[in-house]
Amino acid sequence: MSDLLTGPVEVIGTGMLGTSVGLACRRFGLEVVLTDLSAEHVRTASGLGAGRPRQPDDRPQLVVVAVPPDHLGAAIREALDSSEATVTDVGSIKTEPLRVAAASPAVERYVGSHPMAGSERSGPLAASAALFDGRPWAVTPHDTSDPGGVRLVEELATACGGVPVRMTPEEHDHAVARTSHVPHLLAVLTAGRLAGAPPEHLALSGQGVRDVTRVAGSDPAMWQQIVALNADALRGVLAEVREELDALQDAVIGRDRDALGVLLARGVAGTRAIPGKHGGPVAPTTSVFVSVPDHPGELARLFADAGASDVNIEDVHIDHDPGRPVGLVELLVDEAHAEHLLGSLESRGWVTHR
Amino acid sequence: MSDLLTGPVEVIGTGMLGTSVGLACRRFGLEVVLTDLSAEHVRTASGLGAGRPRQPDDRPQLVVVAVPPDHLGAAIREALDSSEATVTDVGSIKTEPLRVAAASPAVERYVGSHPMAGSERSGPLAASAALFDGRPWAVTPHDTSDPGGVRLVEELATACGGVPVRMTPEEHDHAVARTSHVPHLLAVLTAGRLAGAPPEHLALSGQGVRDVTRVAGSDPAMWQQIVALNADALRGVLAEVREELDALQDAVIGRDRDALGVLLARGVAGTRAIPGKHGGPVAPTTSVFVSVPDHPGELARLFADAGASDVNIEDVHIDHDPGRPVGLVELLVDEAHAEHLLGSLESRGWVTHR
Repeated sequence: MSDLLTGPVEVIGTGMLGTSVGLACRRFGLEVVLTDLSAEHVRTASGLGAGRPRQPDDRPQLVVVAVPPDHLGAAIREALDSSEATVTDVGSIKTEPLRVAAASPAVERYVGSHPMAGSERSGPLAASAALFDGRPWAVTPHDTSDPGGVRLVEELATACGGVPVRMTPEEHDHAVARTSHVPHLLAVLTAGRLAGAPPEHLALSGQGVRDVTRVAGSDPAMWQQIVALNADALRGVLAEVREELDALQDAVIGRDRDALGVLLARGVAGTRAIPGKHGGPVAPTTSVFVSVPDHPGELARLFADAGASDVNIEDVHIDHDPGRPVGLVELLVDEAHAEHLLGSLESRGWVTHR
Repeated sequence: MSDLLTGPVEVIGTGMLGTSVGLACRRFGLEVVLTDLSAEHVRTASGLGAGRPRQPDDRPQLVVVAVPPDHLGAAIREALDSSEATVTDVGSIKTEPLRVAAASPAVERYVGSHPMAGSERSGPLAASAALFDGRPWAVTPHDTSDPGGVRLVEELATACGGVPVRMTPEEHDHAVARTSHVPHLLAVLTAGRLAGAPPEHLALSGQGVRDVTRVAGSDPAMWQQIVALNADALRGVLAEVREELDALQDAVIGRDRDALGVLLARGVAGTRAIPGKHGGPVAPTTSVFVSVPDHPGELARLFADAGASDVNIEDVHIDHDPGRPVGLVELLVDEAHAEHLLGSLESRGWVTHR
């Protein structure tokens, strides 16, 4: 049990994220009260076990605002002005809501936060008590945030299963511009080049383009808000992209192999800069490819056989495979164990590809 | 057995691709002879069962050139001038090698091709007889290609397990510029923004940026050649990217939500334009998320349980998970079967996320 965080916790906005916060707090043993413009959402979230509808005489210790990006600032300010509680939020952008909330005389009771977890689905039915387990959870105090409030929000993150990462609101917005928003936007630009392309050209699509463009399929209405509200942080990173695209175009037009080599090497360095599992450095992994008949049960058989070799599978990709009922499964494993896994799978009759 | 393709097939260049062609042709029952500047590569490929070293009096029916992009044109021309065989190649770009090969008086015996299959690994040890199974294999005759040669190369693609897709060399180069080379380059630009970023910013990296940037980790020396040799086709698509990046920057600076909505919607349309498995339209799939302890055997147990529900898993992603020994596994399944799978997994004690 937490030292500081004793509840009740009020969750404002019982969509996917807010309901997940409620479920995670209940799992931790805290009392949770729920508020939403939609009484039906509150009933659904409540029915799922995320808490009970808020009553007028409830006195929450901590309010968690979980409304869409455009409404964060006003909802935070309203929560500050109508209670004595510490107030946080779980929105994807941090400086713009703070700018609005700062108009409240009680802004020292506000400490922003942002769990790095989500889903393509929305609404309370998409929620889960375990959504935040093991995920980084940014906690973003501002200059006048009350230190006790900061500790309380960090305890919320921990209580929900997350790993608190403290940074300023400005740092947060610059970090997600680079690690989330610009990758999303470049995936959108890549995918945009496919819309309307001749089907006979698209027939040559392989796994690479599928990976690069996957996030571009997410809800455009949500991303419209995120991008507009994080415009200041995005401008700088987009300017870097523009500068490097200029260099790339010049290198392509001039067939300048040295310049291309520099750009490609920077990309390799970037992929290696992403932290590995468990926040540690990236361990050297190798891909093991296996042909798998595309029907139920075959994957189970493959993973049972891989499991019997006692090698930990770090990641899995199933390649889409036009024209034939055979899939190619890529297993990423520790480099040192790849040969053992290959031998083990081959001895069990699998067709592997080195 | 094939009507036209009776062999022997000569493979020039026993790297990963050439050795795979040899293995696949041997699997089909064809005689294969091998040539490489490296006698050791020929010995290795031969030892793997990809064919035997070529002898001076061999008279191949079909020559398959599988050398690095920069050397394709000269090697194709040399093969045309030194034999009576039909000549093809398996390179990633088609017009530039043709330009060089066209200097041969025997160019009508040349028909380019390009199997859409590969691996991050190189050399004969990375080869596989099944590498091309179910993959599109572009066959790219030029204006004066002999029709019998075109049929022969299509039979090679089929014999190797691939699915021939006929198009002109120019069409091919434009198609891969859009579906492979530009996605690769935008992944490189995205990854380049992470190189040198503060570790505390990179700590917020989620699955999205990992997917977008993965291909950017591939061999830069190979991509340097591909990009330089396909410069003409790339210029046009990169100009489109530049134009849309301009529009994006304007929309971000002006916080123009309508313009952002148009760009984001085009991205969604692009992801939907990619053909689904087996070349058909994309079936509506849903993600089912499951928490899985991160040690050997647990994935096997999950797939066994998923298999027992008789639902076909279309794709799998394992989310990297900093700070905790629990992984999040995403199973993509037919929309109509998701509820059944969720119930089935929950009844077996799995923590699922909707």
